[in-house]
Amino acid sequence: MTTETSGTRLAPTPRTRTVRMHERGQYDAAAIHAIIDEAPVCHIGFLDGTTPVVIPTVPWRVGNELLIHGASSSRMIRRLQDGGESCVTVTLIDGWVLARSAFHHSVNYRSVVLFGRPRLVSEEREKRAALDALVDKIEPGRSARARPANAQELKATAVLAFPIAEASAKVRSGPPSDDPEDMGLPVWAGVVPLSLVAGEPVPDPAAQR
Amino acid sequence: MTTETSGTRLAPTPRTRTVRMHERGQYDAAAIHAIIDEAPVCHIGFLDGTTPVVIPTVPWRVGNELLIHGASSSRMIRRLQDGGESCVTVTLIDGWVLARSAFHHSVNYRSVVLFGRPRLVSEEREKRAALDALVDKIEPGRSARARPANAQELKATAVLAFPIAEASAKVRSGPPSDDPEDMGLPVWAGVVPLSLVAGEPVPDPAAQR
Repeated sequence: MTTETSGTRLAPTPRTRTVRMHERGQYDAAAIHAIIDEAPVCHIGFLDGTTPVVIPTVPWRVGNELLIHGASSSRMIRRLQDGGESCVTVTLIDGWVLARSAFHHSVNYRSVVLFGRPRLVSEEREKRAALDALVDKIEPGRSARARPANAQELKATAVLAFPIAEASAKVRSGPPSDDPEDMGLPVWAGVVPLSLVAGEPVPDPAAQR
Repeated sequence: MTTETSGTRLAPTPRTRTVRMHERGQYDAAAIHAIIDEAPVCHIGFLDGTTPVVIPTVPWRVGNELLIHGASSSRMIRRLQDGGESCVTVTLIDGWVLARSAFHHSVNYRSVVLFGRPRLVSEEREKRAALDALVDKIEPGRSARARPANAQELKATAVLAFPIAEASAKVRSGPPSDDPEDMGLPVWAGVVPLSLVAGEPVPDPAAQR
């Protein structure tokens, strides 16, 4: 993660100011960047006619923009270029919070909600560098080893960049918050940590034929 | 997971028919249910004015409905009851797919996209049973041990149920699909499995005071 924007605090807007559980809200750019950098998936909300549609895709970051990509001809890419508002939400799940009362059960999580309109990354050098950064998110340094996109592949792929400007993070961490009168109840309370773990790599069987 | 609907196939609609990578589309109710049952989080897309908003929350299932809950006074719960269309997307990440070409890198995943309008679960017995099912998703049998919601907590919590009707699943699994002319390139190709793993439970430190 770059540190160029550490210390930067984004200005909350009516759409990104955390209302409920406002103590969980964060507007620090570094905190927002770290969540985007760690997440293998984000969810893009856009309008298709009058219907909100939510589609998962891999987010990555270059500087102060959140990038996504897709087939140039896909509905998501076309709708996102129509000029309407869109929302990108990134969520990392850190654990189940088990309380003594049913009501205080919760989830530990880190999330980012970002509003905006993306720009199309069309200049070839910038687009190639952006796609290299995506491959390097999957495995650092990998873009130097994989066969780069040819002209046809590059054309078939659209890269969109959202400014990380109207955005906020929301974080819950730590133990349950039971009511004082429930603390003596004979039920286990605490956190079951959850994390996305990489397993043993599975080589492509086609390589062994 | 109940098996009452195994074998049921949902009718694709123009909104749920998989267009891109259509071979990844699935309309089998049991496949859709299994993804919802496993997921700790879903993303709800709804309209706030003309802006699509995407919010993460825990999904669970009772029969053929996907349930969510929230503070009765929250924006999400209020907007979802306004009568407009909404979209619920559930995504499980199963692995990074590392190809020989940058273009064929991918993600193994299982996702569900569901369109519809939720109903408010308001009848007390049904609402309590629904919230018990949520606690039991976190830890089977736990609803019998945790202190049940009192009248005030029950009133402060809204439960919404989406019919699992206009829904489809999309699944990618298996190795990369490189082009034949790239198979000889000297770059490792295969899958790095990813899974959400539970760690050692951390007891609430407040219990030890």
